[in-house]
Amino acid sequence: MRPDFVPADPDYAERVQTSFAAQAMMSTLGISITNLGPGWIDLEFDHHEDFTQQHGFKHAGAIATALDSACGYAAFSLMPADAAVLTVEYKINLLRPASAERYLASAVVVKPGRTLTVCTATATPTDNKDETIAVMTATLMTLIGSGIKH
Amino acid sequence: MRPDFVPADPDYAERVQTSFAAQAMMSTLGISITNLGPGWIDLEFDHHEDFTQQHGFKHAGAIATALDSACGYAAFSLMPADAAVLTVEYKINLLRPASAERYLASAVVVKPGRTLTVCTATATPTDNKDETIAVMTATLMTLIGSGIKH
Amino acid sequence: MRPDFVPADPDYAERVQTSFAAQAMMSTLGISITNLGPGWIDLEFDHHEDFTQQHGFKHAGAIATALDSACGYAAFSLMPADAAVLTVEYKINLLRPASAERYLASAVVVKPGRTLTVCTATATPTDNKDETIAVMTATLMTLIGSGIKH
Amino acid sequence: MRPDFVPADPDYAERVQTSFAAQAMMSTLGISITNLGPGWIDLEFDHHEDFTQQHGFKHAGAIATALDSACGYAAFSLMPADAAVLTVEYKINLLRPASAERYLASAVVVKPGRTLTVCTATATPTDNKDETIAVMTATLMTLIGSGIKH
Repeated sequence: MRPDFVPADPDYAERVQTSFAAQAMMSTLGISITNLGPGWIDLEFDHHEDFTQQHGFKHAGAIATALDSACGYAAFSLMPADAAVLTVEYKINLLRPASAERYLASAVVVKPGRTLTVCTATATPTDNKDETIAVMTATLMTLIGSGIKH
Repeated sequence: MRPDFVPADPDYAERVQTSFAAQAMMSTLGISITNLGPGWIDLEFDHHEDFTQQHGFKHAGAIATALDSACGYAAFSLMPADAAVLTVEYKINLLRPASAERYLASAVVVKPGRTLTVCTATATPTDNKDETIAVMTATLMTLIGSGIKH
Repeated sequence: MRPDFVPADPDYAERVQTSFAAQAMMSTLGISITNLGPGWIDLEFDHHEDFTQQHGFKHAGAIATALDSACGYAAFSLMPADAAVLTVEYKINLLRPASAERYLASAVVVKPGRTLTVCTATATPTDNKDETIAVMTATLMTLIGSGIKH
Repeated sequence: MRPDFVPADPDYAERVQTSFAAQAMMSTLGISITNLGPGWIDLEFDHHEDFTQQHGFKHAGAIATALDSACGYAAFSLMPADAAVLTVEYKINLLRPASAERYLASAVVVKPGRTLTVCTATATPTDNKDETIAVMTATLMTLIGSGIKH
């Protein structure tokens, strides 16, 4: 379920897209935004053998990286125009081997806050969204006037 | 501090090296083993702009991937020769921006078990090991006779 | 949303109630089952000054204890009749101060498994279920033939 | 290992003792401070059947409550004199059944910060400090001028 938040910054979508485009890690892993709104985002990425673990499955680190970015940008979408976002911590449970051809990483804000925002996210195959591969809970921090840009 | 375990498999080091070499994600991210023993491992990797987030720091996902693999192989070193290892879950706290030139990811087994093993890991710059960038706690599972090889 | 699982043990509800009644910690904290089904459970408990922290709010430990038990029994409801359940780990985020008169702790199974089950749970005031106080993700283990009963 | 921090408030020890004494949950569970310093604290508590789970072991919630408070007060000891402390989140791994007569919960600050402090903590039997029962990582928040006192 997608949350129903009013963004502090009406240009949140462009701000998210710009910041996401500046994450070299996203293009390296082939992760892109497929949908977003205030307090939620969907990312997608293909299987690729460069990002596998020893059994040929997608490495948990690649799944976690997508979910972490999804949580970060879901939180960032609700932040003021001059804010930067940093990940404080996250926890991931890996529920099934990641053996799909393409993945969806969806994050939603559970609780926005002036300083801290909590998000949850799930990774599924794009062709079977009932088969959750991983769940994440993440805490994100709003930085204002830190000298760190977005 | 390095733990003091007796490995079930005397050839654990070769087994760890072989499995690690089969993780394409490790070579993609430029992560290599620099030291290992029964119940512990050290991995190292350089800064590279392909793996950055929007502020130019190392993406948390790249740090987490190294720590996750470190925990996995610390646990795997104590498993029987015919075991495979899977990550059940992990939690990471990011303590400082990752702005070093080279990183050390060190993991140790806190509690080995027949089915589940718990590890902790830390990431630091290689040239300042007092400046912890991230801490992880991970739960790993031993799989025997699953059809999954190592 | 309540999950839709078929329990392995048709007498799961009685088994959950009996085990719950044997948790002295639940009666000490005044926590009781108000609803349950296969793969989910609702617990409720009142505010009581014996379980407060230094600002007069419910201690996070009391909230966590209720959520932990909720996760444990949601998982236990899907386990075989001769299984015991143990908590492997959990992670809790505290979203708001716990200042209600009465609380609901609801847990659902996200992924059942032969060995490990993953649950999520939320705590809310009973009179305002949109105001989430805490979210938990927990990993539970099925023990068969361990000598530990239920 | 105990950390080596310089407290912002020279009267930190009295401030910690006073706040701890105001946590009714601590006296309810029989938990007391046995040692403390800047950035670390030791709590102890006895086994009591009121706080057991269904197998007669100490309930994970009781262990977690002690570790949570230990992390909170380790962090609080380094905060300014006018600060209040709140738990943002924690994660606990339960490594062994809690079947001791008396427990030690020890917490240390891993990374102090102006807004967020990260601590780790371990629970052991007091008579066997090598047998770790549980490990926790917690994130604590410093609140200044919030109207919440200590």
